[in-house]
Amino acid sequence: MPEDKADFEERTISSREGFSGRLLRLRVDTVELPDGSRATREIVEHPGAAAMVPLTEENEVLLVRQWRHPIGQVSLEIPAGTLDAGESPEDCARRELVEEIGYWPGKLRKLGAINVSPGYSNEVIHVFLASELRRYGQEQGDEDWRPDADENLQTVAMPLGEAVRLCGGPEISDAKSVAGILLAWESVQGQA
Amino acid sequence: MPEDKADFEERTISSREGFSGRLLRLRVDTVELPDGSRATREIVEHPGAAAMVPLTEENEVLLVRQWRHPIGQVSLEIPAGTLDAGESPEDCARRELVEEIGYWPGKLRKLGAINVSPGYSNEVIHVFLASELRRYGQEQGDEDWRPDADENLQTVAMPLGEAVRLCGGPEISDAKSVAGILLAWESVQGQA
Repeated sequence: MPEDKADFEERTISSREGFSGRLLRLRVDTVELPDGSRATREIVEHPGAAAMVPLTEENEVLLVRQWRHPIGQVSLEIPAGTLDAGESPEDCARRELVEEIGYWPGKLRKLGAINVSPGYSNEVIHVFLASELRRYGQEQGDEDWRPDADENLQTVAMPLGEAVRLCGGPEISDAKSVAGILLAWESVQGQA
Repeated sequence: MPEDKADFEERTISSREGFSGRLLRLRVDTVELPDGSRATREIVEHPGAAAMVPLTEENEVLLVRQWRHPIGQVSLEIPAGTLDAGESPEDCARRELVEEIGYWPGKLRKLGAINVSPGYSNEVIHVFLASELRRYGQEQGDEDWRPDADENLQTVAMPLGEAVRLCGGPEISDAKSVAGILLAWESVQGQA
């Protein structure tokens, strides 16, 4: 049985670009395995993201409903967004929470970091519990402020326990949302 | 606010292949949004997968350690594998459990289905709780049977509660594993 990293590690022999688009890049690596044989690895390159479980004082979680073209359905998810170049996960979390649901988090607590699909993607999502939420427009003195119109999102509030029960079913199937909601639930239960 | 699918749905205008490899295909769709404007969507096409939370009678979960080239690190994950053409998620779950850890599940219970990354991938992972585990080699009368040598996997057993505590941290960061372990935990707690 391999016992340490050296027994597992795959060494990159060569690398080529398979695709380069607006959001995604895909590269194809030829690697040498620990036993000396070679294999190819197809890797989706993604800049990383932040995802937030926004929890109100009433213990309700604020989710977003949106159309997800790749799966051809409406999906109920925790707010999230891609890191801008040089942006910290915390700054991204605050920015995206305002853009997607119009709330500023007074408090952000890291719940963890997850690799979306380590078999073929390098994407990491930093997951935060966001609390002490304040309406962004109110804080700015702008009552008419609305979340980013381009996003075509609908905000849905529900008790955290209800969201937990929907995880893995047709309503909440998004992996980061299932992971984030259940991590938040464990964290909140642990503090109770 | 949009209220039903018609208010959200994006209609595909045209589609082209961006990449076609051994495991992955990537297509680029031009879509028309509900407001009539157009956008491009980059979509990783994946055949889907099954992932299993194998639970022993002692309430230990069996995990696999393996090198994950895209993230450049060793990753501790629940066993999982890609669906063969025409294969049901249940059959894939049984096959992969034998191939990866050498156990046959007497009982499989669906915990849910998760979309890995619905913003840019169509991959769905069917997640099962696998119990009543029997050593595959013993059942076949072949004491020397070993899990698939090609996979370069190491099996790690730990109490389910300990795996829950590691979820989201550096030890267990894989999204399907975080989701699967926490779904199993909720399910087992609910039955206690």
